[in-house]
Amino acid sequence: MKSASRRPIGVFDSGIGGLTVLRALARRLPHEDLIYFGDTAHVPYGAKSPEAVTRYSLAVARFLEKEGVKALVVACNTASALALPTLKKKLKIPVLGVIGPGARAAAGATRGGRVGIIGTEATVASGAYVEALRRVLPKARTASTACPLFVPLVEEGWWSRGVTEDVAREYLGPIKKAKVDTLILGCTHYPLLKPIIGRVVGSKIRLIDSAEETAKETEARLDKEGLLRRSGKGRRLFYASDAPKRFLRVARRLGVNVKSVKLHPFDI
Amino acid sequence: MKSASRRPIGVFDSGIGGLTVLRALARRLPHEDLIYFGDTAHVPYGAKSPEAVTRYSLAVARFLEKEGVKALVVACNTASALALPTLKKKLKIPVLGVIGPGARAAAGATRGGRVGIIGTEATVASGAYVEALRRVLPKARTASTACPLFVPLVEEGWWSRGVTEDVAREYLGPIKKAKVDTLILGCTHYPLLKPIIGRVVGSKIRLIDSAEETAKETEARLDKEGLLRRSGKGRRLFYASDAPKRFLRVARRLGVNVKSVKLHPFDI
Repeated sequence: MKSASRRPIGVFDSGIGGLTVLRALARRLPHEDLIYFGDTAHVPYGAKSPEAVTRYSLAVARFLEKEGVKALVVACNTASALALPTLKKKLKIPVLGVIGPGARAAAGATRGGRVGIIGTEATVASGAYVEALRRVLPKARTASTACPLFVPLVEEGWWSRGVTEDVAREYLGPIKKAKVDTLILGCTHYPLLKPIIGRVVGSKIRLIDSAEETAKETEARLDKEGLLRRSGKGRRLFYASDAPKRFLRVARRLGVNVKSVKLHPFDI
Repeated sequence: MKSASRRPIGVFDSGIGGLTVLRALARRLPHEDLIYFGDTAHVPYGAKSPEAVTRYSLAVARFLEKEGVKALVVACNTASALALPTLKKKLKIPVLGVIGPGARAAAGATRGGRVGIIGTEATVASGAYVEALRRVLPKARTASTACPLFVPLVEEGWWSRGVTEDVAREYLGPIKKAKVDTLILGCTHYPLLKPIIGRVVGSKIRLIDSAEETAKETEARLDKEGLLRRSGKGRRLFYASDAPKRFLRVARRLGVNVKSVKLHPFDI
């Protein structure tokens, strides 16, 4: 068995969007090996039940644990919102989500304590961001909106189209009305829409993307646990539970150069 | 065991869209009991691999077979396109899809033999409609386009919004250019966009919705097999593999009054 710090970090997402988190991790932790798992057999998680998301997340986490990861980063906001307590309870390795880091980043950025949250139906319904935010900023005032069409629009590659801006205007109306000063982009796909979202809500609103903060907190946690790797060039390994060719195609569309993807299907 | 003809018909879809087929079946076969299964744990099928779609379809079909259905109607275009041969081979009951009926309806409707096909990525990539069409109309000229955003737009309830029309204009450009005279709406959700699609492609193009033709062919097949039920008031039973509350909510948004939905999850 490799010494603990030499083992890879697992990065788990419902599909392809988590590559934005992988990218931030790779930049901040260039010595670490990263194993990415996209659960493309069940994607998207955003309209599924907490029970199903927890079941899928556990199956992926257990696979990555068997692969010998030393820590698990749950890049998917929906899985972080719904399954993190279960994953932390069931796994023996450190488990980090994106909700806590995103909320802490927003708490650090807001001036007036008015924070907007956008995410999938399931993430918004869970109230996980509001809860995490209140923990660090008890007086925070929040406004949340689900934006179900953003993920398919990003996956289609329509990041800068007029249609996408029209959809954003529709979704973000209530957020603008709530006069937030900070907006959490609570889904891994949304940072790709930053220019459009910025145009719609106005340049005064700070847009918070959990990826950077998550990478920072991952580094701190590994350091604390004595698991940080300090030399060598990190390797990347990619798994998908379905349709690896589509994974490659969409990853490239998102600007991430993935060389190959291994298929690891689940029983159903 | 009930006499064969008194047993219910199984109707299987990846999610909620298949209710348009259920409705057509209920109208044409009012005496039949119908058991609908929406595989909401795996929805959508449109961007998944043929292997995964076949695996999911078989699991649902086997469940319905155990429930005692006398025939299975695969309402989902993607499942019909990718899994029908396997289902027909593995099940002992008659299995009907929507591709054949849709293609035959288009062949009957076209004047110049130029037929457009729109559907999910997986349906279009399979070439199933083109193949089925050529079988009845060997000289048919076809043009196919995947419209991945139509399903989320319909599920969002945005059937008559300007945004949806803009998306339709984008997708249907190549279809218009190909000067088809008939257009197959190759996904259960698309008939809900008929007004917009009609406006975009123009009123001269005939829009083909497989639901009616599928109900007609189901009736003929049951009659031929001596399985048609000729009296009584048919009952409806609904299953979903995840998130039954969301199923109810979206079903109502689609105008189908579903009273209750039973949850039948799969192991993963």
